[in-house]
Order: sequence, then C-alpha cells, then structure tokens
Amino acid sequence: MKHQDIIFTNSVGEELERILAEFGDKVYVICDDNTKTCVLPLIASASPRVASARVISTPPGDENKNIRSLSMIWEGLQNGGADRHSVIINIGGGVITDMGGFAAATFKRGVRFINLPTTLLSAVDAAVGGKTGINFNGFKNEVGVFKEADAVVISTRFFDTLPLDEVKSGYAEMIKHGLLEGNSALDRLLDYKLNELDVTRLLSLLEESVNVKRRVVEQDPFEKGIRKALNLGHTVGHALESLALERKNPIPHGYAVAWGCVVELVLSHMILEFPSAILHRVAAFVRDNYGAPAIECRDYPKLLEYMRHDKKNSGGRINFTLLSAPGKIEIDRYPADEEILTAMDIFRDLMGI
Amino acid sequence: MKHQDIIFTNSVGEELERILAEFGDKVYVICDDNTKTCVLPLIASASPRVASARVISTPPGDENKNIRSLSMIWEGLQNGGADRHSVIINIGGGVITDMGGFAAATFKRGVRFINLPTTLLSAVDAAVGGKTGINFNGFKNEVGVFKEADAVVISTRFFDTLPLDEVKSGYAEMIKHGLLEGNSALDRLLDYKLNELDVTRLLSLLEESVNVKRRVVEQDPFEKGIRKALNLGHTVGHALESLALERKNPIPHGYAVAWGCVVELVLSHMILEFPSAILHRVAAFVRDNYGAPAIECRDYPKLLEYMRHDKKNSGGRINFTLLSAPGKIEIDRYPADEEILTAMDIFRDLMGI
Repeated sequence: MKHQDIIFTNSVGEELERILAEFGDKVYVICDDNTKTCVLPLIASASPRVASARVISTPPGDENKNIRSLSMIWEGLQNGGADRHSVIINIGGGVITDMGGFAAATFKRGVRFINLPTTLLSAVDAAVGGKTGINFNGFKNEVGVFKEADAVVISTRFFDTLPLDEVKSGYAEMIKHGLLEGNSALDRLLDYKLNELDVTRLLSLLEESVNVKRRVVEQDPFEKGIRKALNLGHTVGHALESLALERKNPIPHGYAVAWGCVVELVLSHMILEFPSAILHRVAAFVRDNYGAPAIECRDYPKLLEYMRHDKKNSGGRINFTLLSAPGKIEIDRYPADEEILTAMDIFRDLMGI
Repeated sequence: MKHQDIIFTNSVGEELERILAEFGDKVYVICDDNTKTCVLPLIASASPRVASARVISTPPGDENKNIRSLSMIWEGLQNGGADRHSVIINIGGGVITDMGGFAAATFKRGVRFINLPTTLLSAVDAAVGGKTGINFNGFKNEVGVFKEADAVVISTRFFDTLPLDEVKSGYAEMIKHGLLEGNSALDRLLDYKLNELDVTRLLSLLEESVNVKRRVVEQDPFEKGIRKALNLGHTVGHALESLALERKNPIPHGYAVAWGCVVELVLSHMILEFPSAILHRVAAFVRDNYGAPAIECRDYPKLLEYMRHDKKNSGGRINFTLLSAPGKIEIDRYPADEEILTAMDIFRDLMGI
C-alpha cells in the first residue's frame, strides 16, 4: 500500500490550492448536500481551483451510502468529462470519504483522490487506513476496496460548528489511540478540556492520534494481526451500541467506544495488571464527559450474546485487545464469560450506575 | 501487483479440485445462463467441490455487463453467506471474467477468485492483466479496478463447441502476440491449421501466447509504457470495427485486429523496414482465414477520423505501435496521414480487394 500524504492545517483552502497546483488537471468535488452549503464556500473562498471545480453532491446520512448515490457520483464524473488524470476531493464525514473514495478507486479503474474529513470522527478514523465502500442490501460496508487517498488534509476548523456530541464521539477514538500509544500521549488527551474546544490545540492532539493509527495500519494494511489493536474498546462498545439500537434508543458510536474502553481496561487490570491509577483516571474522564450508559445486571446475557456474534469472533469465543499498560498491547485475548461480567460490575461502579 | 498462478490444462475439473482443496473454504461459481447449462456440468462431473458450489448466473452478453448484473452477483454472494475466506470461480468469456473479477475484488473489500475462460479470446486476452469492470451508462469498462485473479485455469477443451468465428477472433490476438514475440513463435502460429482445430496443439500455442502478454503486463501493470505494445493492430482495427458498427454490419473484434495487424505491418515496413517476406506471409494467413473487409478509398477520411479519436491519442496525432522486425517493438510512433493512407492502399492490394 503506497504511502499517503497527510497534512494537518487550519488553512484548508490555501493548502488544497497548493496540492491541486501540483496535481494539475481537472478537479471534481464530492460532498453531501449539507457540506455543499455550509463548508464548501469556506474552502472555495481561499482556493480558486476548488471554486471552479465541478461539484457532485449526494443526499446526507448513512442511509444514503448506497449503490444509488454511488451511481450518481459515477454519472456526475462521466457527465463532467472526468478522465484518468482527473483529481477528486472528498469533503465530508465518513460517509463521503468512504463512498467518494470507492467511486474514485473504481471510476475508469482508478482516479487520484484527496480526502478532507469535516468531522472529528472521520478525521481520526475514516480518512486513514484505505477502507472505502458502501452499504449494500442492509449490510454496512459490504462492498468496497482497500485504497488509500493520494492526500488527506486534516483540519479542526469546521468542528466548532458541529454538535459537541459529535466532537466527543470522535474524541473517544483519540483516547483509544492514546491508550495504544503510551503514558504521555494519554496524559495530554486527558488534560484537554473537551467543553472549551480549543481547535488549535485539538489539531496537534489530532495529528498525534492520526499518526498512531497510521503506524498501526502501515504494519498491517490488510487487518491480519496487529491492526486488531484498533479494536480496543470496540468489543464491548459494539455490544452496547447494538443493545441501545435494539431498544430504539441509539447512542453515538464514540460514546459506546469510550464506555467500552473503560470495561476493557478493567479486564486489562484483572488479567494483565494494567495500572489501577490510570484506569481510574480514564474512567473519571469518561464519566465526566460521556456520562454513563443505562445498563443493568439483567442486560448482561444479551451483551455477552452480542459480543459473541461480533464478526471478529469464531468458535464461540470473544476476542479482545487488552493492555498490560498504556502502549503495551496484547491482541487475541479470550477472557472467560465470568471475567467479562465481573468487569461489567466494576465498570458500573466506576461510572456511578 | 502480485504474481498469479496460470495453469494450462485440459483436465479442468481435476485441476480445479486440486486448487480448491488448497484454498479450502466456501466456493461460489459465477457464470452466465448459457455456461451454466453447457459448460458447468462438464467441470462439475470431475470436481465435487465445483459440483457442490453455489452458482450465481447472469443473463449472457455484453449488454448485461452492467450494474444490474453486478448487484445480482453481490446479492448472490451475500445471500449465500460468502465471507472474506470464500473463493469465487468465474467461468465464462470476457464478460464474466471482467464482471465476476470486479464483484470478487469489491465484495467485503476483496475475496479470492479464480478465472476459467471458456472462449479463446478471453483465454488469450481478458484472463491476464488484472483488468476487471463493467460497462456503465453507455460506456464500455467505465467502472472497475486492476486486480489479478489468484489463479487462472486455461483450457482449449471447450473451444470445439464454439463457432469457428469465435476461435478465429481469439487467434488474431495470438498472431499479434507472435509478432511481438519474434520469428519462431510467429512461425508456429502461421503453421497452425485453424480449420482443423487440434485442441492439444492449440493449448501449447496458447500457453506461449499468454506468456507473451504476461511478460508485457508484468513490466508495466498500469499501462504507462511498454504495455502499449499490446495495441499492435488495434489502432486500425478499432477504426475498422467502429466503421462496420456505424454501418450496422458489425465485424468480430478479432477479425478487425487481424486486418489491423496487416495494415500496421505495412506501415512498419514503410517506416521501419519490417521484412517484406514476413509481411507477405502474415497477410496471406489473414486473407486465407479472415477474408477481407469491405473497405473502399472513399472510406479513408472516416477511418482516419476514428483513429484520431481513439482514447489513446492526444493532440490530434495518431499513436501506433510498430515493429522493425518480429519481436522488435517501437511504441509511440506517429506516422503522417498520407503514410497511413498509402498503407491502407497496399493492404487492400494484399487482401485482393
């Protein structure tokens, strides 16, 4: 997998103008109808090349990350005369970077593309790793390819117009990366005041966080081994998300990951002696910023069931990534059901449930 | 691009059984409705794993190489429980190897696949080189990716049930490869009696021919330089094809390539002193096996126009691959219009038009 350029900047238009001058050729923007109205003009005002690009926009939302929108994008490229030398800029959240990346990877068997994530979650997560695709027939990301963008421009500039929930959701993935990276990275993240949203400081934290993911992905581009480390917090997190969805009371993905991280740190403490003081510090940060999930003892069997059916598992065992300390990763751990339930109990205590 | 396994055999079922035993896991067959009836049972009788595979079949013909059939294939894989460890076998002509390859390359971001071409044209051409895709919105191969099959099983066993025209069409691409390879390869091809269709001898010629293409593609997987050598015969050939199509009297692709090769060898003789004796031998083979196209002097301006608008060209010049001798390739040659027309005149003489 080739090495992609990742640029961290809050002068987005100027930076894009510079990249596009290098790439030459015709420029196409893919975004959703909201981004077209709210974000695109801010960028276009500082980039004549973006301002004069042909814009292909799709209806917003994960429910539109489908073959219909993908066909609209291919058609827009075709009608706009795009060829193998053209450049596509995907401006948006994960839906657009995934779907626009897939459109670019397949139009005429591959056109260059730049990702410009406009949400914290897509900046930290979806824009790096080369996963592109769409939902198909009721299944998420069922169809796609692995293809890294030629460049990713990451900015925190658009985040202060987002709901704080959205920012917190992305920040949970950053906490996860801090746990994978080590003590000082984690300290910096836990010291940050989410409610104040200092976007300049957030940009430097984000840079550190994206680089953690990048290093993991580079070691394991096709998700055979160490990339499983990125599942930290997600085994329990997905179960919490699925349960909430079943009860028609969905929770943001990042909230579930934040809570999942705490449960999995408890397990790490029980099984691998992850330091208790750090566990308590993370738990306090999560409780203060994300509150607590509505979980009771009688939900445990259902949660275990959801964990067991996660697509990462086989043979009825539940796969975890655990830590013996921040930065000390142990993939492919299989705690017993009773250990998982004990960890859930301790988690509920820590959250004050 | 990874190195794919290409196996030449007329014991197709047995060979597939051996490969599938290595690959393990669930097997899916993609084919068209005709192949399902006529070819699949012959293979299944010698391969229990093929016999028990889930079969996904689509309506035949290039007009069905579209997003609709592709969606049917994705849905078939999904409903059949295919996962990342499954194996897909594409059995058919170029439509199926292109479309099935694209489906496999994108389902769950990539599932292993085996190509089993059932026509000479797809064996010699479409099964090697990693081009996958579908037509979209009236344009051929508008959407796809470069992805080589994990294995290609090539056989001549199904060809004697094909119309002889189809075999001749594929054989023209083999002649082209012989010209690119050199004297002795070309001699063996010109000595073969197409009308007798000795499938065992054809298999060994086919092996030699596929290896020529494989070597060229390996040197230039993304078609930036020497792969243009494979366009020999196609600059003129496509123009003849387009003119015939415009007149509602379409000619097989390979016939156009055979004639195109002769015109381009005449040009090669004029410009690069390609040996006259070999030119005459090729011309005689083409005349005897393919007859002559219905071309008059007054068609010349239109033919030049078609050549000029070929997607390989830019700046109004017409790009040719020429030869100074069999095996001595010169890409990116731009003869003057008058030279092309003189070559057309000589070609018509050689064909007895």
